[in-house]
Amino acid sequence: ASLDVFNGSTPAVPVKPGEFFKYGFPGAAHDIAYRQEFVSCYDRERRNPMWVVEHITPDSIKSNKGEGAPDRKFSNFKEDQEVPLKFRARLADYFRSGYDRGHQAPAADAKFSQKAMDETFFLTNIAPQVGDGFNRDYWAHLEDFCRRLTKQYGSVYIVTGPLYLPKKYPDGKYRVSYEVIGNPPNVAVPTHFFKIVLAEKPVKNPGTSDVAVAAFVLPNDVIPNETKLTSFQTPVDAIERSTGVEFLNKITVKQKDLCREVDCSIVVR
Amino acid sequence: ASLDVFNGSTPAVPVKPGEFFKYGFPGAAHDIAYRQEFVSCYDRERRNPMWVVEHITPDSIKSNKGEGAPDRKFSNFKEDQEVPLKFRARLADYFRSGYDRGHQAPAADAKFSQKAMDETFFLTNIAPQVGDGFNRDYWAHLEDFCRRLTKQYGSVYIVTGPLYLPKKYPDGKYRVSYEVIGNPPNVAVPTHFFKIVLAEKPVKNPGTSDVAVAAFVLPNDVIPNETKLTSFQTPVDAIERSTGVEFLNKITVKQKDLCREVDCSIVVR
Ligand SMILES: [Mg+2]
Ligand SMILES: [Mg+2]
Repeated sequence: ASLDVFNGSTPAVPVKPGEFFKYGFPGAAHDIAYRQEFVSCYDRERRNPMWVVEHITPDSIKSNKGEGAPDRKFSNFKEDQEVPLKFRARLADYFRSGYDRGHQAPAADAKFSQKAMDETFFLTNIAPQVGDGFNRDYWAHLEDFCRRLTKQYGSVYIVTGPLYLPKKYPDGKYRVSYEVIGNPPNVAVPTHFFKIVLAEKPVKNPGTSDVAVAAFVLPNDVIPNETKLTSFQTPVDAIERSTGVEFLNKITVKQKDLCREVDCSIVVR
Repeated sequence: ASLDVFNGSTPAVPVKPGEFFKYGFPGAAHDIAYRQEFVSCYDRERRNPMWVVEHITPDSIKSNKGEGAPDRKFSNFKEDQEVPLKFRARLADYFRSGYDRGHQAPAADAKFSQKAMDETFFLTNIAPQVGDGFNRDYWAHLEDFCRRLTKQYGSVYIVTGPLYLPKKYPDGKYRVSYEVIGNPPNVAVPTHFFKIVLAEKPVKNPGTSDVAVAAFVLPNDVIPNETKLTSFQTPVDAIERSTGVEFLNKITVKQKDLCREVDCSIVVR
């Protein structure tokens, strides 16, 4: 095959790089799982969720009591067989890692059925979180704040996910640095977590299409309960830059600042 | 809406998490660009290529001489306007960073037209590389090795991309740690780079459908020219685990080890 690169305005292209895909198209692949209470998107490189979207309403989070009521004592953490083995987060990765298996969609948001609750225990909804002072404390209070919003809103969406943020070092350079647990190392330990909260149907004005939005970025670390929740408020745009994905990019309705509509604060019981 | 969670075997699902996507589906989005000599897939979080697939042949890499011949002196590095601004690698990010703008598909593989060569200068084909001792030396010799394969094979595909690998620290923990250049920090500095080489149509046996494959993982660091190329050979599977993407997953033909078919070594001129 001779090349015609000097004569004529459309030189021949002598190669076909796209033909490589006959051997497989690399992706990026992302594992989307539609569950009863949430939708999760999995990050095959870090073996963590990329994001998890939940929906809660005043009715959906009601606690059912009595015999047959959903109970987390019947739920067990489990590996997600839908993820190819070589990319799967494993129970063994968390064992003796020092980190909690941190729910993105919390079990307490999925009390309407045992199946819904069980689904929150898939490792595709889990990431390593500092236990005391974070998962079991401040982060749990933030989850409670989200649930309490259903007193003022008929419908609340919550997007939760991990972040791997750069930090400025004494040499003036920025570095991203995070632990990877498991042996061989398999699951990344996020430096931060985000929640984007979008509240619809305010009780005060149920007919409006306006939505109230607030986003929070918290370090995966001990946080004193005295810290104001609003100190973690962050523009959605900053979370998009950090994750590389776009949230709310199709939104057309009016967005209000949730923390100007309601009191954004945690309640420690 | 009342919940029917205790009676009947299919409890009502009172929420619709997938309805959130009316406000936008987050992705993961990946920016695929079909160029003349390569196809690139962009990582919006690290602002680097995720992978770049090239195709070269004995004819395609021939140097054209004389007036009007493609020349890299006519090519300029340029930002890729197809990537949304908030996820785009910028020329300013590299300025005074101390790193070279390292081609994944090298300019010297795209000499068949000025357009093909120009396209290799899109920042979606570029990642920060150590200059002396790597981009300008060992890595360039590896690129040359790939081109020399066209003496023995009629068709060669090369997949190139960055890696962000965990390292074991003195405390026994594994951590991924990488610099992020730009101000504010924007483009990640890979710890390693990989090349997967797949050679078809051996000159010795042009009718065969067998392919010869070798993969290499090199640190983004000074590498002495005396280091054997085979010391960097790695199973494709290991690169898949590290990137979270699958290469050659549709391959059905017989795979031979390229480094048993040819001499896998660099030539320093
Ligand atoms: Mg938790
Ligand atoms: Mg180079």
